[in-house]
Amino acid sequence: MSIPTAPPSGFRDFLPEACARRARAIETISRVYRSFGFSPIATPAVEGLEVLLGKAGDENEKLIFKILKRGEKLEEARAGGELADLGLRFDLTLPLARFYVRHQGQLPQPFKAFQIGPVWRAERAQKGRYREFYQCDADILGSESLLCEVEVIQAITSAFLALGLEQPTVLLNDRALLEALFDMAAVPKNLRAQACVLLDKLDKTERQAVLAELGELVGPQALGFLESLMAEEPDESRLSAAAREAFRRLGEIREALLGLFPKPAFRLSPCLVRGFDYYTGTVFEFRHPSLPISIGGGGRYDRLAESFGGPRVPACGGSIGLERLMLILEESDRGGWGPHACVTVFSEELRGRSLKVAAQLRQAGWEADLYAGTGRLKAQFKYADARGARLALVIGPEEAALGKIKVKDLRTGQERLEALEALLAQGPPQAPGG
Amino acid sequence: MSIPTAPPSGFRDFLPEACARRARAIETISRVYRSFGFSPIATPAVEGLEVLLGKAGDENEKLIFKILKRGEKLEEARAGGELADLGLRFDLTLPLARFYVRHQGQLPQPFKAFQIGPVWRAERAQKGRYREFYQCDADILGSESLLCEVEVIQAITSAFLALGLEQPTVLLNDRALLEALFDMAAVPKNLRAQACVLLDKLDKTERQAVLAELGELVGPQALGFLESLMAEEPDESRLSAAAREAFRRLGEIREALLGLFPKPAFRLSPCLVRGFDYYTGTVFEFRHPSLPISIGGGGRYDRLAESFGGPRVPACGGSIGLERLMLILEESDRGGWGPHACVTVFSEELRGRSLKVAAQLRQAGWEADLYAGTGRLKAQFKYADARGARLALVIGPEEAALGKIKVKDLRTGQERLEALEALLAQGPPQAPGG
Repeated sequence: MSIPTAPPSGFRDFLPEACARRARAIETISRVYRSFGFSPIATPAVEGLEVLLGKAGDENEKLIFKILKRGEKLEEARAGGELADLGLRFDLTLPLARFYVRHQGQLPQPFKAFQIGPVWRAERAQKGRYREFYQCDADILGSESLLCEVEVIQAITSAFLALGLEQPTVLLNDRALLEALFDMAAVPKNLRAQACVLLDKLDKTERQAVLAELGELVGPQALGFLESLMAEEPDESRLSAAAREAFRRLGEIREALLGLFPKPAFRLSPCLVRGFDYYTGTVFEFRHPSLPISIGGGGRYDRLAESFGGPRVPACGGSIGLERLMLILEESDRGGWGPHACVTVFSEELRGRSLKVAAQLRQAGWEADLYAGTGRLKAQFKYADARGARLALVIGPEEAALGKIKVKDLRTGQERLEALEALLAQGPPQAPGG
Repeated sequence: MSIPTAPPSGFRDFLPEACARRARAIETISRVYRSFGFSPIATPAVEGLEVLLGKAGDENEKLIFKILKRGEKLEEARAGGELADLGLRFDLTLPLARFYVRHQGQLPQPFKAFQIGPVWRAERAQKGRYREFYQCDADILGSESLLCEVEVIQAITSAFLALGLEQPTVLLNDRALLEALFDMAAVPKNLRAQACVLLDKLDKTERQAVLAELGELVGPQALGFLESLMAEEPDESRLSAAAREAFRRLGEIREALLGLFPKPAFRLSPCLVRGFDYYTGTVFEFRHPSLPISIGGGGRYDRLAESFGGPRVPACGGSIGLERLMLILEESDRGGWGPHACVTVFSEELRGRSLKVAAQLRQAGWEADLYAGTGRLKAQFKYADARGARLALVIGPEEAALGKIKVKDLRTGQERLEALEALLAQGPPQAPGG
């Protein structure tokens, strides 16, 4: 009997090198988020379907991997009823809102939290789009202050810098500005959701084609008006009071950010929409020169907690998409995943020596692999190479008699004899395997 | 409309302090596993049902959270068919075996891997038993050597020590020894699975009651024989050849381990079974004095890869159960989760100063929270307390005029004026909030 060994479509295995690279990126992002005073929290992978569907119901239903009821309840449901009661979370924001409403009394106010973990979406898998992917979210709940926007954007920008990447460009907009522009261009309310979808595509695909489609939707006059308003620095005198207020707020956020980073890479982008419909104010998106798509984003969502029967809770958060980040890091971050040393095992009699040498190296902070196979020395060197180790250590009868270790540098091929104490005093070689 | 805010039954939210504690434990375990030369790998949360059910089929079926088919396939299935095609993994060993068979050509031989992540089981939730819980696995595939057992047990023991815990006691047994004992006691093959379940309970619940039940199953004669054989140091002359061989191997593993740790806490336990039926040889279990149940375990599973149509792959692995570990760590590991400092915001005019001070502290390695609310200074101090911060920093008009910062120690209540440079030169206070 043979069972398929590929992961399900849209899901991935991570081999050691890729897995180590992901772990390093997650560690760096956590460290930066913590340094900003965000506290780690965790919510389950599985939520009740009523939480996941919420008010938006239909819109998210297709995204959700639903979990079959169990036992008697399944039998009842088979007879005609809802077959599922649970589902996998499709983002980290909705669980955070539930978490906040539930635990509010035990949390500092405002509450700065971060979560890094997988989410699942039952979309058709395609190149670069997966059904299981990681998000790295930072959120501030319980404050209207525009410091929330500043801190979230600053933390995410700092995380990219700490990862060794170029400072990303941040596009800023406000849903209120967008609504005000629609008002001024007299775009009917019932066409706005669709118009938003088109606006969101504007700088991602062929601009002229999108504009043509938008013109068909709202009419040529409104289109012309929208285009003129969506210049990066619109003529303030033509803006409505509501639009001016949103515009002023965005300006303040931008100014605060400009004072914090060397590159003035924060710009207003009046046609930025961002997918989820829970955003109520500011929205923002991170772009990196090497990718045509966003590598993160977020915004203000002041009404999400209300859907759990809580009061209105002002909130603002942002997220780094780990998968897209890894596309960039794969280009820049190579090597360095192997251990400092592989300790070989010469014979059954000398096995105890190798075990002790490995144990002492590890206690001294080395990453020291011990060959656990049954092959001869040649096979063991091949293994050490495959592991990307920097050194191979041999304790054969001659070395044991001298109380020394043969140290082979796997990059240069050079061999030398060393006492264990000398090796411990030198410390592990600088970059493991790198 | 109000939606329940509790996580589903058996699932948990983790508040900041608990989440930070878990993250620290996971980091320590990863570091120790890496130091032993285990490479990190990751497999998806979701596997095909045929992988999860495998040969064992029925036995594991009830454990699995199954995922409903989607779209047209669901419609077809509703008419009468299998409703689910995917499921959540219930351990990390089965996915590892699939991973190994699939990627074998790209992996070093033998392959030492570790995985830390959640698994899910659709069991009835009860105190201390959850439906989502973390396992921390280390495995060596592709080697028969008893160094595999030694390295896995050594790595897990070292991880407990690195977490600051007492050295655990390791119980050792071999499935072959168990089979040989059954042979010698003439326990019929068809009763052995059930007898194993009872033996497994022997030192977990009331011994006499379990023995009585066992006697009823196998008869009083076999019971007496089993009892005499299951002494910790059985009389070798009474053992069969197969049992003697298993016994010799266990002795070698035990001896190697005794040479590596200060406490001689490795003992043979001939009635140790361990649940999963994929074990083929050595089995072992970790016990900690403060818990009556195991905090980890593992064993040799030489035939698991065969179920994926691969060749026979000798393999041995072990796992730390994070949830039980956290029960012990909660007792010993308190405090220390807050940031080094909370930077207050005096007014809108002075906001920029606070932002810059926070940014410079963070660059210097501080965890520096910035108050993102709109409250007055008193509310901000309350916030800093709730966050468990060590210091609160104030930059009001007086401080700004002097070019200084007011530093309040939140433990002692003492205040002092400092220049930012002086604060940076001192470095962050030693234990954040602790």
